[in-house]
Amino acid sequence: MLEELKREVCDVNIALRDKGLAIMTWGNASAIDHERQLVVIKPSGVPYDEMQENDMVVVDLGGNIVEGKWKPSSDTITHLLLYREFGGIGGVVHTHAEWSSSWAQAGRDIPVYGTTHADYFYGEVPCTRPLSEAETAENYELNTGRVIVERFEGTDPLQVPGVLVHAHAPFTWGRNVRQALEGALVLEEIAKMAFRTEVLGNRYSVGRHLLDIHYLRKHGRGAYYGQKKK
Amino acid sequence: MLEELKREVCDVNIALRDKGLAIMTWGNASAIDHERQLVVIKPSGVPYDEMQENDMVVVDLGGNIVEGKWKPSSDTITHLLLYREFGGIGGVVHTHAEWSSSWAQAGRDIPVYGTTHADYFYGEVPCTRPLSEAETAENYELNTGRVIVERFEGTDPLQVPGVLVHAHAPFTWGRNVRQALEGALVLEEIAKMAFRTEVLGNRYSVGRHLLDIHYLRKHGRGAYYGQKKK
Amino acid sequence: MLEELKREVCDVNIALRDKGLAIMTWGNASAIDHERQLVVIKPSGVPYDEMQENDMVVVDLGGNIVEGKWKPSSDTITHLLLYREFGGIGGVVHTHAEWSSSWAQAGRDIPVYGTTHADYFYGEVPCTRPLSEAETAENYELNTGRVIVERFEGTDPLQVPGVLVHAHAPFTWGRNVRQALEGALVLEEIAKMAFRTEVLGNRYSVGRHLLDIHYLRKHGRGAYYGQKKK
Amino acid sequence: MLEELKREVCDVNIALRDKGLAIMTWGNASAIDHERQLVVIKPSGVPYDEMQENDMVVVDLGGNIVEGKWKPSSDTITHLLLYREFGGIGGVVHTHAEWSSSWAQAGRDIPVYGTTHADYFYGEVPCTRPLSEAETAENYELNTGRVIVERFEGTDPLQVPGVLVHAHAPFTWGRNVRQALEGALVLEEIAKMAFRTEVLGNRYSVGRHLLDIHYLRKHGRGAYYGQKKK
Repeated sequence: MLEELKREVCDVNIALRDKGLAIMTWGNASAIDHERQLVVIKPSGVPYDEMQENDMVVVDLGGNIVEGKWKPSSDTITHLLLYREFGGIGGVVHTHAEWSSSWAQAGRDIPVYGTTHADYFYGEVPCTRPLSEAETAENYELNTGRVIVERFEGTDPLQVPGVLVHAHAPFTWGRNVRQALEGALVLEEIAKMAFRTEVLGNRYSVGRHLLDIHYLRKHGRGAYYGQKKK
Repeated sequence: MLEELKREVCDVNIALRDKGLAIMTWGNASAIDHERQLVVIKPSGVPYDEMQENDMVVVDLGGNIVEGKWKPSSDTITHLLLYREFGGIGGVVHTHAEWSSSWAQAGRDIPVYGTTHADYFYGEVPCTRPLSEAETAENYELNTGRVIVERFEGTDPLQVPGVLVHAHAPFTWGRNVRQALEGALVLEEIAKMAFRTEVLGNRYSVGRHLLDIHYLRKHGRGAYYGQKKK
Repeated sequence: MLEELKREVCDVNIALRDKGLAIMTWGNASAIDHERQLVVIKPSGVPYDEMQENDMVVVDLGGNIVEGKWKPSSDTITHLLLYREFGGIGGVVHTHAEWSSSWAQAGRDIPVYGTTHADYFYGEVPCTRPLSEAETAENYELNTGRVIVERFEGTDPLQVPGVLVHAHAPFTWGRNVRQALEGALVLEEIAKMAFRTEVLGNRYSVGRHLLDIHYLRKHGRGAYYGQKKK
Repeated sequence: MLEELKREVCDVNIALRDKGLAIMTWGNASAIDHERQLVVIKPSGVPYDEMQENDMVVVDLGGNIVEGKWKPSSDTITHLLLYREFGGIGGVVHTHAEWSSSWAQAGRDIPVYGTTHADYFYGEVPCTRPLSEAETAENYELNTGRVIVERFEGTDPLQVPGVLVHAHAPFTWGRNVRQALEGALVLEEIAKMAFRTEVLGNRYSVGRHLLDIHYLRKHGRGAYYGQKKK
């Protein structure tokens, strides 16, 4: 079942390695079939070299395995909470990519230092609060999802398609799993340039007007970047 | 029309990706046919993987499309202003390359810290002033060009073949589009080394005499670097 | 003799170069055959390009050559001490990898700044004390092993599978030589992210609870990461 | 004439690009035939892509072209002075490699922060004093050589086989041109790790005893690293 979605999810998981976002087994991607309310996700701990589309696991939104020969990613419960809470999203990517994770480890939001950022994220990339000892000890993966959702109170997840989990690493998402991958790539580039911007001495983020023009010319109602959507 | 120029512009656009200057669709190159006063430029938002020379767009200096099946790059108006104002240039390249853009985001000129810089740029690489809210809200791309031109008041653009746009990214240019690409590559290398030079503790740029000998032995009247031009 | 172990050790030595952990001849890997108490190790100063499995050297735990046409690695005595003192280990890798070695040169332990670290190392990655002048002048390689062992007083080497030797570089180990290679790769990634985390301003390592959940969900008795071991 | 030396010099010049030490035409290698007192060197400004061994230029120690269809490298006069003054050397390499040049631009010697450095350079890698205005304006390339020689007063160039030219970039050398290339690669790695070591907080170089054991076990009379020389 869901053969096309499995292929897409498998491709994106492998792209995590090919694009330099994940070494070892440090990354996972998933996608949801909105109609059937089923999620296709990477199996846990399977190396990218050996992964094939029929290794993907199908789970329902409660985390029950519907199809698949493997256990799903240990981060599955976090993915599922994001699908339940962030209505419009169709794909989620989690990596330990080097620059984004460094910001996550520093426990810091990434300020909007330039137009590259503004082209994709309509505001700073938020970092979650640390989990408490109790939240860590029990239902850790679920609580990881909860602090993400808590942090997006009042923010549209499709306008800010990613987050840094404190002392951990990034999650990104989008209308589909390819967009979630694109978000992960862009976030890594933003994180790298923001790091260097700070070392060079700037501590001021860009004004609202520059954020607006860049984000909205690509994503707003009157967007004029790229070709007309067919 | 302009088939040879289209091929050259297409090649340089693809080189932006191959040389590590652009990911996604984050870069664009153009060239002018001085005789016909027509500019060949990358289409907007088309991935480098799929780009072919007949995807290039031909526009006049007023921005009207003369030939092409796509909309031109959203930065076209900036390119055109540079061609109108900087007489001798034949090609323009714009990227969000990681090191140059970090300096642009920091809002800083790149000082002349060494001979690698002096070999190509006859003075610091300037950063434009920030655009005002009004300049951003209306005619953004045109105003981007205007602050570049404003910054070059009194500077020969062929002796300083590039600029950092504040909170944005670099533009480079040259007598033709290949030189503009070379400028983008060199600027990236200079930006990287200048960053590290500062971290290591130097805050003094090189003296005029060293700048002169290096720039002029390559580009001056009595240049003795390289082979005799035929 | 030990043909399979020789192939494995040769493969891992070559992987040191292929994975970017070693240039020139700057790295060596070894493995022990627990039953025969023999160690297979890289020959000294032989380039990775030319290395073949029958170039590997077999030594006993006293450092005597049992088989092989070359002298063993100049670090052999350090490897052997680790096998004698750290009971459960089956493979050792030594490199001058760029990020890990920078921490070693700074003489600093790597704090646990995030879950990537906690997934593999159950606590900070320790740095040894400097060798004294006398320890350097005589039995240098043996004393290098001794300060490692001294530093692990009270620490289980299989829970913290690596060390930084002061002003020198890392050693990693594992149940076999492939695990030792994995440790070297992970340590390099951790070292890189910890460096950037500090530059971004964080000086606090993660709490015990987060270290526990991450280390133990992969390595503890109730581990639930990855697939069931067959 | 000197066909074998030409091939070797051409190979090393191309290796400068392949090993990431030079982009554009930013690097040059030469070698001397001690018997005939002739030097083979890269032509000026010829791209690495097109370079072939019969493009190499043969000059005498006074800088006169003995054979070759091109002008020699604009740095030829510096190379020649090194051959005249540093008796035992057989090859010279000059690059603008990114890490070494950053130290040169900062005008700083590279301290001995670890054993990787001590394995190849028997002491800090020195940086020359800045050239005066007069030294720059006239005989620039010759004076560049002179400040190198001045800096090595009291130092054996074969024990410290490289230098940073102030605000410029590194020169390295060795008994032959392959050793000079190896020196350039090692210097780049040392420069990178020293940069990071400083950011991590260390400002103390290693003790004499550690420098001695590492340098001398590879290069001293009783060297025991590598295999016996045949």
